[in-house]
Amino acid sequence: MWMSFPEQPPVLEHGGDWTGYEQVYGAAPLDFSANVSPLGLPEGVRKAVLSALPDAGRYPDPLCRALRSAIARVEGVDPAWCLCGSGAADLIYRVVLAKRPRRALLTAPTFSEYEAALGLASCQVTCITLRRENGFLLWPECLEAITPGLDLVFLCEPNNPTGRTTPRPLLLEILARCREVDALLVVDECFGSFLDCPADHTLCGALEEYRNLLLLKAFTKFYAMAGLRLGYCLCSDTALLQAMRRAGPPWAVSSLAQAAGLAALNEGAYVEAVRTLIRRERPWLADALEGLGCEVIPGEANYLLFSPPLPLLEPLRQRGILVRSCANYRSLDGSWYRTAVRTHRENQQLIAALAEILRGNLG
Amino acid sequence: MWMSFPEQPPVLEHGGDWTGYEQVYGAAPLDFSANVSPLGLPEGVRKAVLSALPDAGRYPDPLCRALRSAIARVEGVDPAWCLCGSGAADLIYRVVLAKRPRRALLTAPTFSEYEAALGLASCQVTCITLRRENGFLLWPECLEAITPGLDLVFLCEPNNPTGRTTPRPLLLEILARCREVDALLVVDECFGSFLDCPADHTLCGALEEYRNLLLLKAFTKFYAMAGLRLGYCLCSDTALLQAMRRAGPPWAVSSLAQAAGLAALNEGAYVEAVRTLIRRERPWLADALEGLGCEVIPGEANYLLFSPPLPLLEPLRQRGILVRSCANYRSLDGSWYRTAVRTHRENQQLIAALAEILRGNLG
Repeated sequence: MWMSFPEQPPVLEHGGDWTGYEQVYGAAPLDFSANVSPLGLPEGVRKAVLSALPDAGRYPDPLCRALRSAIARVEGVDPAWCLCGSGAADLIYRVVLAKRPRRALLTAPTFSEYEAALGLASCQVTCITLRRENGFLLWPECLEAITPGLDLVFLCEPNNPTGRTTPRPLLLEILARCREVDALLVVDECFGSFLDCPADHTLCGALEEYRNLLLLKAFTKFYAMAGLRLGYCLCSDTALLQAMRRAGPPWAVSSLAQAAGLAALNEGAYVEAVRTLIRRERPWLADALEGLGCEVIPGEANYLLFSPPLPLLEPLRQRGILVRSCANYRSLDGSWYRTAVRTHRENQQLIAALAEILRGNLG
Repeated sequence: MWMSFPEQPPVLEHGGDWTGYEQVYGAAPLDFSANVSPLGLPEGVRKAVLSALPDAGRYPDPLCRALRSAIARVEGVDPAWCLCGSGAADLIYRVVLAKRPRRALLTAPTFSEYEAALGLASCQVTCITLRRENGFLLWPECLEAITPGLDLVFLCEPNNPTGRTTPRPLLLEILARCREVDALLVVDECFGSFLDCPADHTLCGALEEYRNLLLLKAFTKFYAMAGLRLGYCLCSDTALLQAMRRAGPPWAVSSLAQAAGLAALNEGAYVEAVRTLIRRERPWLADALEGLGCEVIPGEANYLLFSPPLPLLEPLRQRGILVRSCANYRSLDGSWYRTAVRTHRENQQLIAALAEILRGNLG
């Protein structure tokens, strides 16, 4: 049925879009191109969606009252500091439309939706190029780019696709400098829950002091709810959140996603299991990739950026495996790939396929 | 839990928002404030959502390829003419952000999200006031308001909250006049499926000839999927649709909503049952309201606009019933209410409660 679309075969503008793959290759791929939890939808979340389904005829609560209260309790903030969206991407567009920045600052590479949203507002975008020789980390000189007239800075922590985080002292300096020049700092912590110690890195504790700080968070990735669409943001500038609420349709979050989010917040054991798995598998996968002659950036989340000695996309696809080509990331190119960290068995399958592809090169 | 929010008790900025009602009144209300199918989620749709749930960890198809193909087949148009959104409201914001109109024309009263979206684009809005003495119908002189420099016209057919449709010859004149002045005509047919003969009224057949026509359609209302969020639009200007796709997050429609929409298109018996029910109940409810001394506008969809001799909101709420106050519609006021047409038993309950409230006035 999809065959009638010119966009075929699979687009992969973002990871995880493999519509039509099964029709071409006969089976679903082993998908390392999307960075979602390898443990799948938590059982409690599945049950909550089932329970919410009979009420699907009712409009969702446009203010997500119960969910926001629960998030606020978990995050230790005022519910009024929380706004929910249809995935974090929804909130990226809303903050840009609410804030209407004339000048914004990004890093390169980073998640492409910041620039896409800024383009919609005809914003002038400056990019700080993260250098390979610096492990794709931000360095203190970046502060010089935060000058009067700048309205908005997007930072992705850990960054997508590098998996690196900015050292906390520098992050706090950036935040203070943004306040000095009256710029909003949006820190995208959507992959923060996959860090070994999320509490050490989140800027949640700075929200009260810094009204110019907005944190983006997702349920999508950590709870394997990408198909359900749910994210939220935290900010102590409630007028900004109110403007964001009005910068898009009033029913942003489906009732099923609201029910799913409420249930996810009770999944303590699942959270621990995912974090333990990632903490164990990430170094294993990084070592194995290096062993096959790949350059591996020491990512800290549930994905790794690497550069192999040979092109991988097609040979992996032939073997039923998808990774994310980084060809369409600013300041990267087709020699870079991003792979999710998944279960040990799946990671072994990836490494086995790569060994097969790269063997000739190694031998 | 919701108690901590200042927005309580129930906001009812739109119909259907009764979060917190149960905590105050002890039970869910009988909800006539939202215009959704009284027959609830079709069984086939419920099953489709269940089947899609195990794949919730996967990102939704951002291009909704299978769903768009199926919609296109049902509507008899090219799949490239179809764009899906997270409810029709999502598409209202996207068309405004993609088109960036400087001047737009609306009717008053009408659905409030057109003006909300236009406000986001700082658009200058002109309203044609629909006159009570004219049954809230558009009249031919409205053509004079369509002048060069106008970029966008929103028409709601049938209109919300009046339930009236514009006579087809006038609708076609408006469309032609819009093309003359290079204005996009957005016709919101979200309640079109509830008309006695939808095929007689839809402008779908004019899409090929008029690239300046965009039709909005919803699954939300007719299939009682308000909680799931799914709508679509049809337009032969594929560049506009492409711009709309980029005027918001790429994963607009959850995978569950895509599955639900695909299943809904196979619910022929459900469609017939809803239409038969509404065709029978609408005149019954209108007559009963008139019998109680209310002025009733002869709506053609699954809701009725009426003006009773006494205030109704609070006395109905005390009796466990919600209707939609029209106080916040432009050019209406608190003396007008909108009620959904529901099952005969529910409509009887509404009329019984109204009889109790209005009895003193009649006696």
